[in-house]
Amino acid sequence: MAANGQTKEGIDGPTNPMVTPLLTDLYQFTMAYAYWKAGKHNDRAVFDLYFRRNPFGGEYTVFAGLEECIKLIANFRFSEDEIAFIKETLPTSCEDGFYDYLRGLDCSDVEIHAISEGFVVSPKIPLLRVEGPVAVAQLLETPLVNLINYASLVATNAARHRFVAGKSKLLLEFGLRRAHGPDGGIGASKYCYMGGFDATSNVAAGKLFGIPLRGTHSHAFVSSFMSPDEITEKSLHSSDGSHVCEDFVGSAQAWLNKLKRSNLLGGIFGETNQSELAAFASYALAFPNNFLALVDTYDVMRSGIPNFCAIALALHDLGYKAVGIRLDSGDLAYLSCEARNFFKTIEKEFGVPDFGKTNITASNDLNEETLDALNKQGHEVDAFGIGTHLVTCYAQPALGVVFKLVEINNQPRIKLSEDVSKVSIPCKKRSYRLYGKEGYPLVDLMTGENETPPKAGERILCRHPFNESKRAYVIPQQVEELMKCYWPGRSGKVREELPPLKVIRERCIKHLEQMRPDHMRRLNPTPYKVSVSAKLYDFIHFLWLNEAPVGELQ
Amino acid sequence: MAANGQTKEGIDGPTNPMVTPLLTDLYQFTMAYAYWKAGKHNDRAVFDLYFRRNPFGGEYTVFAGLEECIKLIANFRFSEDEIAFIKETLPTSCEDGFYDYLRGLDCSDVEIHAISEGFVVSPKIPLLRVEGPVAVAQLLETPLVNLINYASLVATNAARHRFVAGKSKLLLEFGLRRAHGPDGGIGASKYCYMGGFDATSNVAAGKLFGIPLRGTHSHAFVSSFMSPDEITEKSLHSSDGSHVCEDFVGSAQAWLNKLKRSNLLGGIFGETNQSELAAFASYALAFPNNFLALVDTYDVMRSGIPNFCAIALALHDLGYKAVGIRLDSGDLAYLSCEARNFFKTIEKEFGVPDFGKTNITASNDLNEETLDALNKQGHEVDAFGIGTHLVTCYAQPALGVVFKLVEINNQPRIKLSEDVSKVSIPCKKRSYRLYGKEGYPLVDLMTGENETPPKAGERILCRHPFNESKRAYVIPQQVEELMKCYWPGRSGKVREELPPLKVIRERCIKHLEQMRPDHMRRLNPTPYKVSVSAKLYDFIHFLWLNEAPVGELQ
Repeated sequence: MAANGQTKEGIDGPTNPMVTPLLTDLYQFTMAYAYWKAGKHNDRAVFDLYFRRNPFGGEYTVFAGLEECIKLIANFRFSEDEIAFIKETLPTSCEDGFYDYLRGLDCSDVEIHAISEGFVVSPKIPLLRVEGPVAVAQLLETPLVNLINYASLVATNAARHRFVAGKSKLLLEFGLRRAHGPDGGIGASKYCYMGGFDATSNVAAGKLFGIPLRGTHSHAFVSSFMSPDEITEKSLHSSDGSHVCEDFVGSAQAWLNKLKRSNLLGGIFGETNQSELAAFASYALAFPNNFLALVDTYDVMRSGIPNFCAIALALHDLGYKAVGIRLDSGDLAYLSCEARNFFKTIEKEFGVPDFGKTNITASNDLNEETLDALNKQGHEVDAFGIGTHLVTCYAQPALGVVFKLVEINNQPRIKLSEDVSKVSIPCKKRSYRLYGKEGYPLVDLMTGENETPPKAGERILCRHPFNESKRAYVIPQQVEELMKCYWPGRSGKVREELPPLKVIRERCIKHLEQMRPDHMRRLNPTPYKVSVSAKLYDFIHFLWLNEAPVGELQ
Repeated sequence: MAANGQTKEGIDGPTNPMVTPLLTDLYQFTMAYAYWKAGKHNDRAVFDLYFRRNPFGGEYTVFAGLEECIKLIANFRFSEDEIAFIKETLPTSCEDGFYDYLRGLDCSDVEIHAISEGFVVSPKIPLLRVEGPVAVAQLLETPLVNLINYASLVATNAARHRFVAGKSKLLLEFGLRRAHGPDGGIGASKYCYMGGFDATSNVAAGKLFGIPLRGTHSHAFVSSFMSPDEITEKSLHSSDGSHVCEDFVGSAQAWLNKLKRSNLLGGIFGETNQSELAAFASYALAFPNNFLALVDTYDVMRSGIPNFCAIALALHDLGYKAVGIRLDSGDLAYLSCEARNFFKTIEKEFGVPDFGKTNITASNDLNEETLDALNKQGHEVDAFGIGTHLVTCYAQPALGVVFKLVEINNQPRIKLSEDVSKVSIPCKKRSYRLYGKEGYPLVDLMTGENETPPKAGERILCRHPFNESKRAYVIPQQVEELMKCYWPGRSGKVREELPPLKVIRERCIKHLEQMRPDHMRRLNPTPYKVSVSAKLYDFIHFLWLNEAPVGELQ
């Protein structure tokens, strides 16, 4: 099966054709060989994939990357070329039977349960549970962790930026050039959209995922013009096609003079930069219905804004409506307010309807902190273009997703550590979200696979997995099981469909809005609680004592 | 031409087939349309690609990513499918002639000069100069910046880790699972190798680039075993094939008892974890010549190390040499010293030659600071496995590579900014590295394209591009021109060949060693100077005054 072919379940291969079964750590193959050599490769293992701490100092994480994982699993097969490379890489002493084993290997005997993509999730709760032959599950570890780590991190980062910017602002992801490589960029566009952004500048991502695209022009476009004389074709049809303005540039220049003479604007400008005016005129002639100008190449208030307004007013004469401006440097709060006043004055004085509402987009190294500072200063920005800090997750560029063995051949396994936060929670488990009276999630609860599920209206004891004294009774209004079967293997279960990106995005936005506001605060949020059932608690601690060596103080 | 086909120059497409002409910002297309509409698309433009500040608080950067850029340029063509998508995306008012223009577009009229990959580079100096039709050069902006930004950042990060670890240590890149998406991981492996790492765990990168691969087993492998009884096939041939040990597990257990009884080891352990012993035995049976054990699943000193030694000694009896151990938690300095002592005692007491030199690998969230701290504490680690901090460039996850118009139709252009560090250096330029008597680079110098090149032995005035008072005379021992022609377009120049990764890596290591040590210091390095010729300095300031609006204090 070609990497990008389709399985009988109709699931395409991963978006990036470089995601193959070789995209894994070498030790997964050395272990697979050792398992195979020991006749242990088909031992039935259960692994949990989870993270230990929410990123960015917050109390929530958006789960993302699942679709790509399922695409990998559905198409997981080694090509002869890949097997030849593994054979070259492993010691020559390795037996040929192993390569025959790899030849026949796929994920038909693997079962994947996962939380649905776009859900708000918490530490320790399994995002994905892989059940299957131990050798196969281990080969999957690295690509699954890779596909979920950055996806969840950047989706969470997008959600946090949305939270600070507010629901009414348009958020544009402009990060492709600063992202970690080509599909660092493509992944960023996909998962920022999922986390609540409205559009991207990344054309490839727009094509792949149907994400709305945005973008107009750069400083280079402005500096590439020398003067209005360069523009040879100056005519522009009116919007309704009824007449033609033979000299659109002249019309804009006439407006510029009118603005300059008008004392209404406080005489804030003298001569504007004429090469900038030429660039704006050229752009307007190309896109009369979509004129948006970058106004800070020379000087925002003394050149960019008056030039923009002259073009916008000339467009207005022909029945077109200019879209707006972009600010890419300077004091964005101040400049946006000044620009807004300018636009409002023009609306009033020249009777141009809605000119005061002209769109103001801001970009230039924005992040959560600068958005917050802009809010505090007061600003008139309608749309934010965010790049570097968003896509590189500058504030915390890694999420610590791990993949831990919790059961093998029906025997629960625990991974101990001197650092309690690194102790794994053993057993094949189920997890539930318990909702309170007001509709907010109250706590997430893990139980053993075969425990009686918690029910709405029943009193349930929720225990901290490691801290004996932290426990609480909860009577949930509603109980939601978190993991669904996304790859049934041979279990005969129904496979949960992979929804389109737009649906995941809507679910994500809904879930974020559903959280109790104090969990969502940027600073010092209230911890969201993650718990285990009383029965699972007892079992964890029984196993822990069993496995931990007794120390000797010397 | 298929994205991954070969041009007539024999240059393959980009490693990641997702790197297509659509991997760019939408505004490159809207600008291309506006240029085309104005009949300006073939105006001859010169763009410089450079960064403004060295990353990680250092005074050097490794230039990486060039090969992928040339592969993109050599294969830059739009498919019908891509053109259809652009047409769908742009306003319907855009004329069809534009899509015909895109249909015929390639980089045959583009000329690329660049510094060779693996060179040590500095801020402001053009890494790459793109000369060609303005619309094409702009379409290239985003992918070129994307391909160079992360590549150079992570190669620099690798070089910095090598600098702290020292030349004698083996450095292994283990970052795939924490990297920013699939080719965040693949790129990290390639560019960390370029920057001085020795090997990677990433099998796909090993296959693509011929990077040495490393890896043995994980904690899950250890916890997947319950007891030595699980091992059914216990026999192992001796290394020379002369005899067979029928019960290798028993032989290891006998060694364990011998070690336990021996007072030489200070009685530091009692009962070791038997499932761990089983896992180690199993791994040794599979890889008798490559036995390396992860020793911290239960307890390093009380279980992991004695179990490893028992297996290693049983292997030794059969003529095999164990490779070593990996420590993945705890106090790495202390544990490595304790392990070394243990190994040395065994060498001495049981007469096992070189057992004291058994390899010790350390991993677990290592970075420049922890390597430095380990050096200060004293340690016995031979190899470091580094992941998260290396590949995500945790200390600074973005490099600010920019792409600025410096000339159009032979007219120099300057981009002004209130922030002087953001003012661009106009003109089509050449750059040189001037070397001093001791063989160290002294200063990089930019001149206009047609200035007389600096010569060895001549007195040259080097000026800071923006600071009038900073200037110095230099008499270089040697002068090296920095940019070479990597894509001649129609110029008829000879195309510089793209060397193999190994050659770039060697060049990079050589260049790093050539730098004066005070520029390479981790803390407070001496600034490496970047200058312009007296002639270029005068021209910059003439243009600056010409373009900047004169302010009015009110």
